[in-house]
Amino acid sequence: MNDSEWVSEVEQSGEVGLVEFQDFVDTKPFVFESGASIPELRIRYETYGHLNASGDNAILICHALSGDHHCAGVYGLNDRKSGWWNHMVGPGKPIDTSRYYVVCSNCIGGCQGSVGPSSINPKTGRRYNLEFPALTVGDMVRAQALLMDHLGIGTLHAVIGGSMGGMQTLEWITRYPERVRNYIALATGARHTAQAIAFNDTGRQAIISDPAWNDGDYSADAGPAQGLSVARMMAHITYLSDKGMQNKFGRARRMVEKPASEHFAVEFEVESYLRYQGQSFVNRFDANTYLYFTKALDQFDLYGPDDNLEDALSVVTASGLVVGFTSDWLYPPRGNREIVEALLRLGKDATYTELAMDFGHDSFLIESQDLYSLIRNFLDHPAPS
Amino acid sequence: MNDSEWVSEVEQSGEVGLVEFQDFVDTKPFVFESGASIPELRIRYETYGHLNASGDNAILICHALSGDHHCAGVYGLNDRKSGWWNHMVGPGKPIDTSRYYVVCSNCIGGCQGSVGPSSINPKTGRRYNLEFPALTVGDMVRAQALLMDHLGIGTLHAVIGGSMGGMQTLEWITRYPERVRNYIALATGARHTAQAIAFNDTGRQAIISDPAWNDGDYSADAGPAQGLSVARMMAHITYLSDKGMQNKFGRARRMVEKPASEHFAVEFEVESYLRYQGQSFVNRFDANTYLYFTKALDQFDLYGPDDNLEDALSVVTASGLVVGFTSDWLYPPRGNREIVEALLRLGKDATYTELAMDFGHDSFLIESQDLYSLIRNFLDHPAPS
Repeated sequence: MNDSEWVSEVEQSGEVGLVEFQDFVDTKPFVFESGASIPELRIRYETYGHLNASGDNAILICHALSGDHHCAGVYGLNDRKSGWWNHMVGPGKPIDTSRYYVVCSNCIGGCQGSVGPSSINPKTGRRYNLEFPALTVGDMVRAQALLMDHLGIGTLHAVIGGSMGGMQTLEWITRYPERVRNYIALATGARHTAQAIAFNDTGRQAIISDPAWNDGDYSADAGPAQGLSVARMMAHITYLSDKGMQNKFGRARRMVEKPASEHFAVEFEVESYLRYQGQSFVNRFDANTYLYFTKALDQFDLYGPDDNLEDALSVVTASGLVVGFTSDWLYPPRGNREIVEALLRLGKDATYTELAMDFGHDSFLIESQDLYSLIRNFLDHPAPS
Repeated sequence: MNDSEWVSEVEQSGEVGLVEFQDFVDTKPFVFESGASIPELRIRYETYGHLNASGDNAILICHALSGDHHCAGVYGLNDRKSGWWNHMVGPGKPIDTSRYYVVCSNCIGGCQGSVGPSSINPKTGRRYNLEFPALTVGDMVRAQALLMDHLGIGTLHAVIGGSMGGMQTLEWITRYPERVRNYIALATGARHTAQAIAFNDTGRQAIISDPAWNDGDYSADAGPAQGLSVARMMAHITYLSDKGMQNKFGRARRMVEKPASEHFAVEFEVESYLRYQGQSFVNRFDANTYLYFTKALDQFDLYGPDDNLEDALSVVTASGLVVGFTSDWLYPPRGNREIVEALLRLGKDATYTELAMDFGHDSFLIESQDLYSLIRNFLDHPAPS
């Protein structure tokens, strides 16, 4: 089988197949909500499917904290790992690339190609590190809107995202209500709980207290790997559920006997799994981006100083689906449901669904026929707006 | 008011008042379950009340991971902080020191006076650090049993403990069934869940990855403070509940405005609280003890390799009360209830009660009339055995 045959086969089989990322570079300064600016914007993104003549079939997918622009397909024929939502996005899949033009971009502030703390500051020739301006979810969405302009997309058929991507989705429908017709927010909330802030700040402290963090001023090959790894281990626990971990690992042991000198070495399977998660994260993620992203999430608050969610949501015109997951204790179902309750009080078109899955916060990333049906039906038959 | 008047007053008011700790030193080697040994045992303890002539009114209280032997009273007239369970233990209190002789000891392996990794090894004149033998909950209880021998206590009226203290309580009734007539285990389990192991291992990694840990070989004034602080911050979150944190902190801010250079400084009250918890822990706790204690807890497993809790509990003769707390997600109610279910299947005398409190795992340490009544009634009217 030659390359083109292979590509043809995967496309027929419902896969987007080979994909390439692209970079959108805007050489005008990008001004953050804080008022600070950077001399140019760079957003890395991927697209799947084709924009139709009327330009009204575009869907924007917003990634979660550790995600990126590569949400579907593969980069090469031997690439064993496909995009992070490959089972959801493709021809004939719930987010159907034979019908929709799907865009996914790495967030501003990120570390997978978009400009962020680990990028070179053209003014200094050195990494921004903490000279990168303070970041908000609003900044993430404003950068995405510039990318939509660049791609010729006026109004989006839908914005879709889970977790941090869900917060971006909520930001889209309140900041650019005229540019979104439908939205799906998964495993998210209109603000963080005190517990979520507590976990994030503990993760930040793990990074900041690593001597290699060096007040944020480190080079690409000498970052605070230990601190970032610990932060990721802890965060990863919060992405799963007690029951899910029990089902997957229980108390299974990695090694039965070990020398006394290794009393604190890996003993249980769950330890091995988490340490691997922590260590592999270090190879693909920048510690300062972790600080900026988590801080942006902690500060995101659609309830506002008056503790009134309806104020922020009053401008919404899009039709929405919000999905909570029963075992998600980081973004509990309650916080998802409250969004729709506020929308319904405002007379908006919105639906809340709660799925019973045992995978905790990460449930939205797991293959699920129920979730597929929900998303497919919602996108195919959007309620009249 | 002179000192003796003050002491008289606090005793009449239901306080144990001024207390002193004592050290039990056994100059024979203590052999751990691992087979390794240390040349002598030292256990620091406190007692309140008086042992009666028949020696049958003694109660042993077992402390939790970060606790110690000082569970009631004060060390001086100006001591503002009383023992960790002072509201529970005293004349006329639920654990009534006018009727019972109450003993509380710092666990072997600890760092509050009992021999542990931070103690001087008499053979080398240096701290044990990781030369301290691997520790189990069984070792903790065996050392306590030697202390009971020393105090002339054959059979205990009751053993009581929460969390790690609850695991010691379960170890007592299965290892020395003939020496315990009643027991109360609070917010505990017969083994850790995968999630609890995961949190503990992440805490251990925070310590181990701190360069100051130095493979466990550090001096008293140069330990892995940053790593221990992060471990404690994370653990402290697991001791509370989402709702409890929401009620106590919500999204209240510590400072409204701050300079951009302090983008990751304390912003929310919950961050300030947790960072304080982390930093103050460093001043009173040894990092290696943290490693040894958490490992002992992770390895504790009364279900055993055959996953059969009844096997271990079949020897129990004492009457028991096990209390779970609805908001405790670290030692969930389920794991507490399973202990009593197994005991009842075996025909043992045991009661399970679940208290609805919002304080998470730490609920057993919180003032609660319901908990007071439960403990008082159980101790006063033990079921016939």
